[in-house]
Amino acid sequence: MIETAFPGPASGRPSRSALARAAVAASLLLGLSACVTASPQPRPMPVEPDGGTGATVPPAMQWMYGSGESGASSLQAYDAFRDHVIRVARARPADSVVLAASATLATPVYVPCGAKPLAVMLDVDETAIQNLGYEYDEALNARSYDQERWNRWERTGAAAVAPMPGAVAALRAIRDAGVTVIFNSNRMAANSAQTEAAIEGAGLGPARHGETLYLQNDIGPGSAKDPRRAAVSARYCVIAMAGDQLGDFSDLFNARTLSIPDRRRFATGGRFASLWGNGWFMLSNPVYGPGIRGNFDDVFPADKRWSDPQGGNR
Amino acid sequence: MIETAFPGPASGRPSRSALARAAVAASLLLGLSACVTASPQPRPMPVEPDGGTGATVPPAMQWMYGSGESGASSLQAYDAFRDHVIRVARARPADSVVLAASATLATPVYVPCGAKPLAVMLDVDETAIQNLGYEYDEALNARSYDQERWNRWERTGAAAVAPMPGAVAALRAIRDAGVTVIFNSNRMAANSAQTEAAIEGAGLGPARHGETLYLQNDIGPGSAKDPRRAAVSARYCVIAMAGDQLGDFSDLFNARTLSIPDRRRFATGGRFASLWGNGWFMLSNPVYGPGIRGNFDDVFPADKRWSDPQGGNR
Repeated sequence: MIETAFPGPASGRPSRSALARAAVAASLLLGLSACVTASPQPRPMPVEPDGGTGATVPPAMQWMYGSGESGASSLQAYDAFRDHVIRVARARPADSVVLAASATLATPVYVPCGAKPLAVMLDVDETAIQNLGYEYDEALNARSYDQERWNRWERTGAAAVAPMPGAVAALRAIRDAGVTVIFNSNRMAANSAQTEAAIEGAGLGPARHGETLYLQNDIGPGSAKDPRRAAVSARYCVIAMAGDQLGDFSDLFNARTLSIPDRRRFATGGRFASLWGNGWFMLSNPVYGPGIRGNFDDVFPADKRWSDPQGGNR
Repeated sequence: MIETAFPGPASGRPSRSALARAAVAASLLLGLSACVTASPQPRPMPVEPDGGTGATVPPAMQWMYGSGESGASSLQAYDAFRDHVIRVARARPADSVVLAASATLATPVYVPCGAKPLAVMLDVDETAIQNLGYEYDEALNARSYDQERWNRWERTGAAAVAPMPGAVAALRAIRDAGVTVIFNSNRMAANSAQTEAAIEGAGLGPARHGETLYLQNDIGPGSAKDPRRAAVSARYCVIAMAGDQLGDFSDLFNARTLSIPDRRRFATGGRFASLWGNGWFMLSNPVYGPGIRGNFDDVFPADKRWSDPQGGNR
């Protein structure tokens, strides 16, 4: 149990004795039953946790939706987003954080703010909300992503989402600071009412299609988000953006000509390095997206490889 | 290719046309070849990327070690860590961010600073360094975690690690601000020389065992990190901590009596919510650790589930 409960390097595996000590400390000092009563959400009923399918929850979903670690990471990003927006809103910046049409990854140029009202832009899925219901269905039935099923989810799943940790308080504080919150999502324009309901049901609204919510096929066709960013930037000074994928910041990161290692280098090097946490805010999402690609050469640099000296290699 | 390249909801899947547009933009404006030449690391040789085993890179490793998204998330966390430490170091706080022996998750109490010199504490594996070599071997050979193999890695893998994005510059700036950097790892004390070499080889040193590096079996036995935090807190005012697991902040989060949902609630609710990004800094690691656990009831709240109305369930 402990073996599976604590995979990974020793740093991640408290010894049985350590757990025993911690358990004693907890039972003595914590008063868990009271805390459970005080907890915001009732525990789900443990009947057929896997629906009788024998399915298991994929590790990335366990981390993303179940761990305190990912919850803390989301809170950390949203508190930084909130603090940055409130600070920057006081002293109007000359430039927005939206790349201008002439920008490249090598030489970024940003849309100027002028006297435009202030706004922030953020993605919806796994940035503002957690798609718990969809991922539950996908994990329980061991399905891979299906665009048509996702469209049915957009139409019928609004009640089965939750806000990302920290998002509700951060967006409220940002609006209280007089900054407009605009969502930029690749959900379908045809399902705008249900997406408004999902966002507002999670406590993250208001979201009004065409005003504070931009969707796929709004303005430009398809899933490119730059045309929507350009349209919003014509009316607003966008002082911060948040997303779980680089395409939530610029479509240039989705260029097919960009290798996976170069994509990581551009995102973390040169001109963009100082933007993270300082205008661009990344939410960690290992469950899906263009960041989840790559063969051994893409992921592991040739000079950072190791073979167990005791062998046992395939 | 695109199908597998962009799994997940539409928000994560730029259309072919969007990619084509982005590709044109890139080829016209970017001058990739020059950028590749300018990139800090040579591309690995694409010979037998999977060593001929047919193995594939697990999704969590693709995200963690290959994506610009995870690189940006790490940079964001380290820049916030650096800025926080420099700010707090100017105005000495009354309390450290290390929980006192009397603390519980419900009622945290922190070790006072007095006139002690300032320090930060951080974990090593997947906090300061990326264990690229070990994970490469594990993925290539489709191995699960093995404590003995990990020990061989500690002894022989020092050259096959890389710093986490943002770590080198942040730790340098923190030391320049007069704050001591102390590592708290569950690597083995017997391998202290090799762990010092791994940290210093990655550009993150100095690390001196017993002074600025604490390891498993130092002070208390086993993997509990609280005894080492207590010992360091007796000599230093610890103004910030960084880690990829909740046990890098307090062993109370590893209490066996704590359910997975309650562990997430304690980490993200109540007294701890405001500490993330404000004294405690989380690095996202979906590859291993105690955050990667849980059945369907642990991970998906009972009131946030959805079944595809078109059925097709197992």
